[in-house]
Amino acid sequence: MESTIKQYENIRKKMLAYQFVNFMISWDSNTEAPEGCFPLRSRQVGILSEETYKLQTAPETVKIIDELYLRRDELDDEVLKHEITESKEGLDKLKKVPIDEYIDYMSLLAESESIWAKAKRGNDYEIFRPTLEKIVDFNRKYIKYVETDKLKGYDILLDEYEKGMTIQEYDQFFEKIKTELVPFVLKIIDSNLEINDEFNKLHYPKSEQKEFLEYIVKVLDFDLNKGVLKESEHPFTSGFGTTDVRITNHYYEDNFTSAIFSGIHELGHALYEQQVSPDLDYTLSGGGGSMALHESQSRFYENIIGRSLEFWKIHFPKLKGIFKKQLRGVKVTDFYKLINKVEATLIRTEADELTYPIHIMIRYDLEKALFNNELEVKDLPKAWNAKYKEYLGLDVPSAKEGVLQDIHWAGGSFGYFPTYALGSAYSAQIYKVMNKDFKVLKSLETGTTKEINLWLKEHLHFYGSSKPPKELFKICVGEKFNPKHYINYLIKKYSKIYNIK
Amino acid sequence: MESTIKQYENIRKKMLAYQFVNFMISWDSNTEAPEGCFPLRSRQVGILSEETYKLQTAPETVKIIDELYLRRDELDDEVLKHEITESKEGLDKLKKVPIDEYIDYMSLLAESESIWAKAKRGNDYEIFRPTLEKIVDFNRKYIKYVETDKLKGYDILLDEYEKGMTIQEYDQFFEKIKTELVPFVLKIIDSNLEINDEFNKLHYPKSEQKEFLEYIVKVLDFDLNKGVLKESEHPFTSGFGTTDVRITNHYYEDNFTSAIFSGIHELGHALYEQQVSPDLDYTLSGGGGSMALHESQSRFYENIIGRSLEFWKIHFPKLKGIFKKQLRGVKVTDFYKLINKVEATLIRTEADELTYPIHIMIRYDLEKALFNNELEVKDLPKAWNAKYKEYLGLDVPSAKEGVLQDIHWAGGSFGYFPTYALGSAYSAQIYKVMNKDFKVLKSLETGTTKEINLWLKEHLHFYGSSKPPKELFKICVGEKFNPKHYINYLIKKYSKIYNIK
Repeated sequence: MESTIKQYENIRKKMLAYQFVNFMISWDSNTEAPEGCFPLRSRQVGILSEETYKLQTAPETVKIIDELYLRRDELDDEVLKHEITESKEGLDKLKKVPIDEYIDYMSLLAESESIWAKAKRGNDYEIFRPTLEKIVDFNRKYIKYVETDKLKGYDILLDEYEKGMTIQEYDQFFEKIKTELVPFVLKIIDSNLEINDEFNKLHYPKSEQKEFLEYIVKVLDFDLNKGVLKESEHPFTSGFGTTDVRITNHYYEDNFTSAIFSGIHELGHALYEQQVSPDLDYTLSGGGGSMALHESQSRFYENIIGRSLEFWKIHFPKLKGIFKKQLRGVKVTDFYKLINKVEATLIRTEADELTYPIHIMIRYDLEKALFNNELEVKDLPKAWNAKYKEYLGLDVPSAKEGVLQDIHWAGGSFGYFPTYALGSAYSAQIYKVMNKDFKVLKSLETGTTKEINLWLKEHLHFYGSSKPPKELFKICVGEKFNPKHYINYLIKKYSKIYNIK
Repeated sequence: MESTIKQYENIRKKMLAYQFVNFMISWDSNTEAPEGCFPLRSRQVGILSEETYKLQTAPETVKIIDELYLRRDELDDEVLKHEITESKEGLDKLKKVPIDEYIDYMSLLAESESIWAKAKRGNDYEIFRPTLEKIVDFNRKYIKYVETDKLKGYDILLDEYEKGMTIQEYDQFFEKIKTELVPFVLKIIDSNLEINDEFNKLHYPKSEQKEFLEYIVKVLDFDLNKGVLKESEHPFTSGFGTTDVRITNHYYEDNFTSAIFSGIHELGHALYEQQVSPDLDYTLSGGGGSMALHESQSRFYENIIGRSLEFWKIHFPKLKGIFKKQLRGVKVTDFYKLINKVEATLIRTEADELTYPIHIMIRYDLEKALFNNELEVKDLPKAWNAKYKEYLGLDVPSAKEGVLQDIHWAGGSFGYFPTYALGSAYSAQIYKVMNKDFKVLKSLETGTTKEINLWLKEHLHFYGSSKPPKELFKICVGEKFNPKHYINYLIKKYSKIYNIK
């Protein structure tokens, strides 16, 4: 047993090193790499994936994991036990996928995002369509390869992004969005709340926006000695272990609140990564517990904290100090209304807190249709546009404002979107529980989020991904997921802002 | 045979992928990585180096290379033939060094640079001496292990950095520097040329320096679609293949010519990499042909082109347009004199074009003495200072401005320095030959270096490292290396600037 564990630890070391390599390459691809490098780069990525795949599926690896899995009840180390269970399940799946197809798919993904970017820039779905078709085809085949009696179809993809979540559960969740939130949103949109937001139409220089973001980094207590702040086309968080956590942001000079909230959002993800137990840096159980748990943290900081009146009562003076001219005479309540303005809009990433889950519901519906074989890639733009009309009453004028807006599908991520809405819902439930321990918004008067960070560290972050996500959530809030907290939170907050009785 | 070649190609693919990984990691470490990430990162780097070493020395790899080497005359593919010969020689050498000594040396090198940095910061040679002694000891033993009838002593180290170069040849070269250049330099230094360089003491904002560098990138026709321009502490060039070539620069607001010339220097390296035949991207024969050949290109663009009057007649107006205030009333001839000002100085990296090879000659003499066992590490500072007195008339006031100034020896690089001077000398010979085909400096009137780039592509760059460096040089200039062209070029140029008859 001892020696088998040692052997496993040796393999784990290599797997971690390959994870590090993946982090390096994807960070570089998304921030720095020149466009012309991708054909050659994708070859290298293909070869490296093959090496990783070989290591993961080597007979020696399989033997060791099988052995440890069989004797898992004898393992004292809970982290190891969880890791072995995960690896065993992963391996069982991986073994079912033909290596050539897997490698081809990896090479495809190495350049698909740059093709998507080109299509989006050119506002031309047809540039991206053939690539997307290949990606969807692979995923359909993948489903067939790995399906079991218990798990079939789109459930397989959902489970990959959020272990334990199924169509059944998501359907229940989105049903509540559909029946309770959508009518409420329509009521809000119909109401005629007057918002003084002339100041939002002014010019806000990038350099000064960056200055404010550096201030926000301090407010949220993100450690730059173990992190990086950078620009990229699309904001994201990436990293390796607790000592190298990176976020990017994008600044719009004609829309100054965008970078503030995408910044706080990514910082939420980043704090989660930085607050994982450093012991887990040497295991495969570091990082956030799941996609939805990760998103619950980014959304928590972005919306529950970042879009609260209490937060801005403290920090609006700093913002006014930086943008003296633009914000002259603007009251904090004007700003609060602006950042919580509800509108039916086309772009998910710019959606307000309230309409956001509707954008996700649309993507969920489309993905479900794609993998139920009720929809083909070529018909995706039409289906997309129809949904936006149905739920948000909008006409989609172009592909780049429609089906091409998100990078996810270009990266092969199907089953990912629903975790965003789930994360938002999680955050409301976490907020409710946190408030039993201390007055969350009142704690902001200290000028930082340190008390909140600490609570989240102790109740969630510290565990990394060393347990199944549903278990982590239960440890954090003491009960199962219940979407009613989310609906209640939203209706309470927005009824107040919009004076709805 | 066919199948052995296929096997070799498979190994080569993996080696290339590991080269790519090294490029990614070292680029990131030098430009982006947060300080706190290094302990965890160095573990990953260690694991990845071990994997690379295992691949290189695996019995299967050795067998395939041995087999192809034995039958190398049957190989039609000249690139492959060259690669196999190189690999065979490298492996044979590696096999002669006891593995435990090699590993000890690698661990020594893993910390030697930080010990050197500490010694330099503290200006105390004694801090570094014991480490340097171990490094020199290993290299003396290494020489014994790998020496053959043909190659002995310091020649072995010289050959590692510049294949085919020997003490005999370097001695002839440096003898010419000693007897012809040194007296000329002393004459120049004694002359009292008046240089109006008050403008050089003004403040030049970084953002405007960057704007000029972006202009220079266009002048030199560096393809940013296959390249990156970035900042770092020390300028360097790095890349993978022809489609991802990256340079960094460092801007000093109180010394505006520094970034211009380090920029042009690195662009010279970068153009070489970008103009290699794209076919070689899939082999181990891409990149520049040798250290000296690489340096010949960076020095060619930096000095022969970049410090010519003809270049600045075209581009000085642009510089004046950017620095209107600072360069008001400054004539192009003033600027030309400034950038060609000759001074005896202590620091190699800040030396001018004319005194530069003297700094290298000093290091060459000292290295030769060390490996001829005529000098011991403890006596190095004394010997260093005596040489600076002898050749440049300077008293060395401190170790950090003397023997501790360069990082190279701390990294175990003995035999590397001479390639810098050789590269400069190569560039003058290339320049002479190029002028037979077209008027090089006159071609600058077009506003770009495109004609020069094309000539260098056809005569040198295109071949990458697919042939031995001496062969590449001969293809380029049609004859053997002859240092007289370098001496003639320098004496002609500086006699004119300094009015020396």
